[in-house]
Amino acid sequence: MKIAIQGTAGSFHSLAAKRLFGETAELVFCESFKEVFATLKAGRTDRAVVAIENSLYGSINDVYDLLLKNHFHITHEIYEQIGLHLLGSDHVDLSEVTDVYSQAPALAEAEEFLDQHLPQATRHEFFDTAAAAAMIAEKKDTSKVAVASQVTADLYNLAILAKNIETHHHNYTRFIALSESEITTKTANKTSITFRTADTPGSLHAALGVFAKADINLTKLESRPIVGEAWQYMYYVDFAAGLHEPRVASALKELESFAENIRVLGSYEAGSMMHT
Amino acid sequence: MKIAIQGTAGSFHSLAAKRLFGETAELVFCESFKEVFATLKAGRTDRAVVAIENSLYGSINDVYDLLLKNHFHITHEIYEQIGLHLLGSDHVDLSEVTDVYSQAPALAEAEEFLDQHLPQATRHEFFDTAAAAAMIAEKKDTSKVAVASQVTADLYNLAILAKNIETHHHNYTRFIALSESEITTKTANKTSITFRTADTPGSLHAALGVFAKADINLTKLESRPIVGEAWQYMYYVDFAAGLHEPRVASALKELESFAENIRVLGSYEAGSMMHT
Repeated sequence: MKIAIQGTAGSFHSLAAKRLFGETAELVFCESFKEVFATLKAGRTDRAVVAIENSLYGSINDVYDLLLKNHFHITHEIYEQIGLHLLGSDHVDLSEVTDVYSQAPALAEAEEFLDQHLPQATRHEFFDTAAAAAMIAEKKDTSKVAVASQVTADLYNLAILAKNIETHHHNYTRFIALSESEITTKTANKTSITFRTADTPGSLHAALGVFAKADINLTKLESRPIVGEAWQYMYYVDFAAGLHEPRVASALKELESFAENIRVLGSYEAGSMMHT
Repeated sequence: MKIAIQGTAGSFHSLAAKRLFGETAELVFCESFKEVFATLKAGRTDRAVVAIENSLYGSINDVYDLLLKNHFHITHEIYEQIGLHLLGSDHVDLSEVTDVYSQAPALAEAEEFLDQHLPQATRHEFFDTAAAAAMIAEKKDTSKVAVASQVTADLYNLAILAKNIETHHHNYTRFIALSESEITTKTANKTSITFRTADTPGSLHAALGVFAKADINLTKLESRPIVGEAWQYMYYVDFAAGLHEPRVASALKELESFAENIRVLGSYEAGSMMHT
């Protein structure tokens, strides 16, 4: 099984992909989400695994927009806790560090620690936490450090200079797996759809009403602008029920009266939800 | 009147602030939204003007999160069309340009033009389009160009090397003005609120139902994660009615049965909405 991911070995994407598809899965590393989607579309991998939402930062808009542009199917979801560590060569003196490298959200999440312990260091944004760590490992320069995962430290033989430097420890990312072809399962208990409503009073309320009536719990509601139609929105809804359930079939049928461009992005088994 | 904005003279923020508060308004330039909010909070300006949403890219999450953390009041909104131009010294030969500077969203929006006409040039992200143009103007180096507004070209005496290089011409940004103190007006016809609902089937539907019942049109619904409570969301709703209207007062009263932490961010005159 070949899986396209954003990032390199040891990245949070790689951890999510291996947990979903096993240690033998072959990962194809990409520099951007756009490249991940293009790789799956070209048939060079069987699946793609992409982060869609983080519990602190919210939705990853690029991925939502790419889901709409491409007609892939969500086959799985999984949650990873994002633990961030300060990595570097052995014998690094924090007061002599000049540069710290990581992905932008990881630098932001470690900001309080960095402000306190490395106020003198310049922060550099990398496309991936693990790629930043790999670069540090190659340079073997005690003035440069990275913010990345525990697995990355093991993989690139880096010392953990400080553990769990993230400001908020309840930091989780939701990842989804995508396939070119539709895969349906009777064990699906979660479904993702998109639709748009009319710009009139009560239209979204009426659309959501079909789920309330069927006693289906919405787990996420996201709106994204429709390109070329200023201030019109496409809604993305996740709900806690599988496509094979009769109540879902009838809710989606009823939704047609209140919404347009209804599309099922996928129906799959919910990853364990961590309410903390 | 002193106004805090992100960016420098000629930025889209500066254009929005001057349109709202007149040419005599004194602008206080900040490098980040965080700095803008801190400047208003410290009482160093009377207002702040911040972008909250773009018609192509959607909500500006940082601003939504800062609105929740700070207890400011929205007093105005305004829409600006984002026209992007390639600016540089006179006699620039596009084939000899090595570097192009602008804000990340402007570089992304001009990507097709840059790929076609400046494939050799390295793209550099700046915190502001106008600051990028000011830097180019100072360097007077024909190998460096910027992507910025028409006003910026006039202000820094730069040549417009190519006009309207944005991929989508219907590119608008919605800006809001913020004040430390509440300002109410009888001419308000738009209101922004935030609230959270219970994680049970139909709770959001019930909350939106109070607006449907009162025939109040929702113009925007945004959800943002609640920090420290993974997969729980705060909803931001804009609707087309003023706080002084009896139907709004009764809808908000009724909302208390279905939602918690209800807060009015502001009630103001709607800027002209451009449905294109």
